[in-house]
This record gives sequence, structure tokens and C-alpha cells, in this order.
Amino acid sequence: MATSARERGIALRPHAKTHKIAEIAHLQVAAGAVGLTVATIGEAEAFVARGIEDVFIAYPLWVDERDAGRLLALADRARVQVGVDSAEGALQLARSLGPGAARIGVRIELDSGHHRSGVLPGEAVGVARAAASAGLEVRGVFTFPGHSYGPGAAGPAVADEQAALSAAAAALLDAGFSDPAVSGGSTPSAPLSSGDTLTELRPGVYVFGDAQQWELGNCRPTDIALSIESTVVSHRRGADGGPDRFILDAGSKVLGSDRAAWATGHGRLLDHHDARIVALSEHHATVEWPSGRELPPLGSRLRVVPNHVCMTINLVDEVQVVRDGAAQGRWAVTARGRNS
Amino acid sequence: MATSARERGIALRPHAKTHKIAEIAHLQVAAGAVGLTVATIGEAEAFVARGIEDVFIAYPLWVDERDAGRLLALADRARVQVGVDSAEGALQLARSLGPGAARIGVRIELDSGHHRSGVLPGEAVGVARAAASAGLEVRGVFTFPGHSYGPGAAGPAVADEQAALSAAAAALLDAGFSDPAVSGGSTPSAPLSSGDTLTELRPGVYVFGDAQQWELGNCRPTDIALSIESTVVSHRRGADGGPDRFILDAGSKVLGSDRAAWATGHGRLLDHHDARIVALSEHHATVEWPSGRELPPLGSRLRVVPNHVCMTINLVDEVQVVRDGAAQGRWAVTARGRNS
Repeated sequence: MATSARERGIALRPHAKTHKIAEIAHLQVAAGAVGLTVATIGEAEAFVARGIEDVFIAYPLWVDERDAGRLLALADRARVQVGVDSAEGALQLARSLGPGAARIGVRIELDSGHHRSGVLPGEAVGVARAAASAGLEVRGVFTFPGHSYGPGAAGPAVADEQAALSAAAAALLDAGFSDPAVSGGSTPSAPLSSGDTLTELRPGVYVFGDAQQWELGNCRPTDIALSIESTVVSHRRGADGGPDRFILDAGSKVLGSDRAAWATGHGRLLDHHDARIVALSEHHATVEWPSGRELPPLGSRLRVVPNHVCMTINLVDEVQVVRDGAAQGRWAVTARGRNS
Repeated sequence: MATSARERGIALRPHAKTHKIAEIAHLQVAAGAVGLTVATIGEAEAFVARGIEDVFIAYPLWVDERDAGRLLALADRARVQVGVDSAEGALQLARSLGPGAARIGVRIELDSGHHRSGVLPGEAVGVARAAASAGLEVRGVFTFPGHSYGPGAAGPAVADEQAALSAAAAALLDAGFSDPAVSGGSTPSAPLSSGDTLTELRPGVYVFGDAQQWELGNCRPTDIALSIESTVVSHRRGADGGPDRFILDAGSKVLGSDRAAWATGHGRLLDHHDARIVALSEHHATVEWPSGRELPPLGSRLRVVPNHVCMTINLVDEVQVVRDGAAQGRWAVTARGRNS
């Protein structure tokens, strides 16, 4: 991802909510990332405490005085930017920051078609002017083309992203805001985004890959860098002519429960591509096995790939690092659970 | 739940995976629980370390030597029982426990219609004999009627539970296994289970309630004891004639992503029963608001009830205890993340 972004002249600012691990953040910076994207002040704190010097909280925060103090403490050690998507949010931020307002950069969030937070491109200048009047430094615009997650969805989403960002960036320039950052991207859309419009990309999931990206064709199973080692604990041979099944001791409390409508199951087996996880509860994955093939023995260990790896990382305290099949030690999931 | 079980002459052994909090476990024991149900050895360790003296790991564990050592260490401090659902699993358990095998009680898991782990009632005696021959003490049978979660599902699931448990318990008695525990129950089924068949109930969710139980009619919203305080961070007034929406800063990383087919949304607002959470991402809940009603102001705080509270508890390190609206301090989620 770093190479591909560099070749297009786009800065890479990976979303660290996917991994929440300081060691991986430093690997990303070493590979050329300009800094990190995070979702919460707590995630920013976790990474700045571990030496990251540039963080963008890509979220329309509502900042009270306590959170303003946390942002200013971060700004003592790092370059800090946050998202805003309303004049009220910008005013609240500036009021809470007080005399330190200019120390925190703001970027205006756009809705480019995902229809979550963010303003329409035509509203960006209004929010930017409110922010600037309140004493904040406006640094650019950003969007998350979240509607890129789906079969055939990335191309149209990138067109939406480009249209929204270029319109808003042009309007900001016309209104006298110079050199705005123009930031977009998600793992499915990032390879398609053009450096003619974007100055920055914020993909997250690419760092590990997961079953969603595998099934969307955005990575191959051999690219996937995180899996859950699980044990076969129960067999259920096909009753009433049904398929053979078995139970793994990895459930939603480690895989997460995310399942898109187009997903073929609740995660995938990394080494058994024709198996499907047909049901998931907290500590059980029910695996349907190709009929006629012998079930893996009770006690055997299989690698499971979660549908959405961001959920798995947030459920574990540490990961085991493996290189060429050999354990290399453990990394702490430093920012796990930092929801605020 | 404790009163209702006592009135039916059934022992209550609440499933502590729902709360994972030592203080709540002790409240349950003080109210009459005979001990706890847990899902993993790690959960058992967390509670025994905090003074719980009777734990049943209701899961068909595959126990290696390391885990056998953990079970025997638990047995030094508490009465310990585990689930088995195969002769191979029982033999593996006995082999790993070695001379300590008789210190760990086993219960045979039955499939009563949920079709996850567990044997059919007619297979229970075979597993029990294998366990006893291997030196384990067979203490009874158990089942989880998980197919009780759904509109109108509890009644038929309780009939299935009763049929499976009574058949297997009778067969165990015939085969010379005396005084077997006969354990069932889930929050939806527990109020309907009869003391004529069951000796023990293992509901979990009842301790807090959640949006699923609210929507199934198993609790009222005023019974719900856990919610997530969240902040309105973004407004989206109805575009193209669509409904008004807003964004809360509580997403799947605190609510979890569980959503049954019959659920009306991704969680509920405790104080706004006609609002619906129509979309959820990691840090955003998109709330649809009744048209024509003024949106709650940006920055206002609303209480969200997760669909499935077991997921939320496993995502947080502590809870704020509130009585009559006043903060009483915090409780640590002692067994969070103890997946193995």
C-alpha cells in the first residue's frame, strides 16, 4: 500500500483502528506513512504515548473541556488534527480548547455517499468559515467512501469520493483556504483513487486483510496476516442426509459478529477454502464440511480468518507474531477498547 | 430469577459470561445461586480467584496437559465440573488429567434442538460410560436450548429441552449413574422450565436484560440494567424526503454487531422507544428519528441498550455502577477477553 500510494504521489495515513498495535504503527511509518489515522482520542493517546508524532482523529468529535485538555496534551507531543462536520461542532471544539484552539487542526468531513456523518460538498465552506472564525486552523477535507465495501462497489464509490472531494476542495480554495489536505480512501477503494484529486489515503484493513477482503477479491488468502488458531471440539456427522459439521472453539467473542449480506459465512478457514462457517455463537463456530470428506479429528487446530479483522483486534489483548511458521514473541494490542 | 427458580425447586447456576464481573457473581450467590456457569477455563480462573467456590464450564472442552493443570489448580480451590460430548473428548480429558481425573466432574452435553455441540439423548449413556471407564466422575447431563431465542420460540424450545433431558437422565439412571444433575435453561426458556425434569437452570442475560430480551417480551425496558452512555455527534436532516437521522458515538466496538433477523435495529435507545438504530459501524450508530420531531441537540447524551449484552461486556474493561441516578463507583470486568 505504501509503494502504491507513493507511486501515485499520495500520502499514506493508515487507519490504526485496524491493528491498535504500536509496533505495526512504527512499521507503517518506516514504510513511508506520514502519520496515523485514528477514530478516538483514546486511540490517539495510545499511539502518541508510544512515539507516533502525527495523528488525525477522523471523527466528528463533540469535545467537552475534559477532552479538550486531552487534545492539548497530545498537541504537546504530536501534530494533531480532528474532524468536524458542523458549525456547532467546530464552535464547541474552539470554546472547549480556549486559547489553545489554533494548536489543533481541523478537517471538514464530507458525505461522499456512505450516508453516515459528514456534510455535503456544498456545505463544506460554511463549516470551514465557522471553524476559522472560532479560531481553529482549517487544514482540509476528508471522506470515508464506506459504500466501497461490496461486490462491484469500489469503482462507483471511488467516483463518488472523487466528485465530493474535488468539489469541496475547489470551494475551499475559492474561499481562500490554501493548500487543503484532500483525504479519502478505504481498503477496497484505495487502489483506485487518483492522485489528481487526493493528497492522502486512509485505508486500514489492508495491513492484515480479512475474509471480507478475500471474498471481495481485494486480497488473496495467502496475503492474510492475521488468523485465530482454534481447536475442533465437537463433531456432528450429517444427520438426516445433511452435511457433515464440526465445532471450533472460536466464536463471536474473538471473531466478532460482523457479516455483510454478501459474505459466504461468519469467517473463513484459511487452509480449507471450501469449508463454510454456517453459524456462530460466543464460543462456537459451526463449520460445514464438504460431504464425503473426513472431518478433521477432534483436537486438531485450524486457522480461522475473521470477516472483519478490526473487530477481532479489539477483542484480544495481544497477538502472537509468527514469521515463516516460527513464533517471534507477542505484541500488545495497545489501543484495544479505547472507545473514547 | 433466583426467587422463581427456588419456588420451582430448581437450583440456579447463572451463566457468568454475561457479566464477567466478580461483584455481580457474589450478588448472585448471595441471592441463592449454587455456583456459576462459565464458558472457558479462563473465565473459571477469573471467578475462582475472586472467591467463587463452584464452577461448571458448560462447554465440550478439548483438554491438553496445560489445560489439565489449570483445571486441577482450580479444583484445589473450588468444585469444578466440565462438559463433554464425545467419548474421545472424555478420554482426552482423563488422559490429560492423569491421576487427578476423579477431581473434575463431567456432565454430558445434549443437543436438544439448537444443533450446535452436544449428543443426542440416546448417545448420552455411551459417552457417560466412556468417561466413567476413563476414571472421570459423571455428574449429569446438560443442554442449552438456544433455539429459544426468537418470537414464539421459547415454548417449543422448552418442550424440546424437557424431552431431551428427561430421556437422557432416565437412561443414565437405568445405566446405574445415580442422582444426575439435569441442567438446562436460557433467559428466554428459564421461566417456562419445570422442576419435574430440571434440577438446575443456567440463564445468563437475565442479569442485565438487553434489546433482544426487550423485543422478545422477556423484560421491560425499565428492567434493563446496562446501557451505554453515548453522545450525539452529527445531524442528518431528512434529505430527499427521507427521515431525520443523527449519529451517536457508540458503534459496534461497544455495542457488538449481533443482530437477529427479527431485531428491529442494531440496539435500542432506552429513553426513546420509537427511534431505531438503522446502521452501525465501529464508532457510529445511525439513528432514525420519528419524522417531524426535533432532533436531540448535538452534544446531548443518550442511553443505548445493546442487542446482546454479552458482547458489550466483553468489549469494556469496567462498568460504572449507578443507583437511583447516582454514581456508586466502578466494577472491573474481571473475565473480559478470557476466551480460553
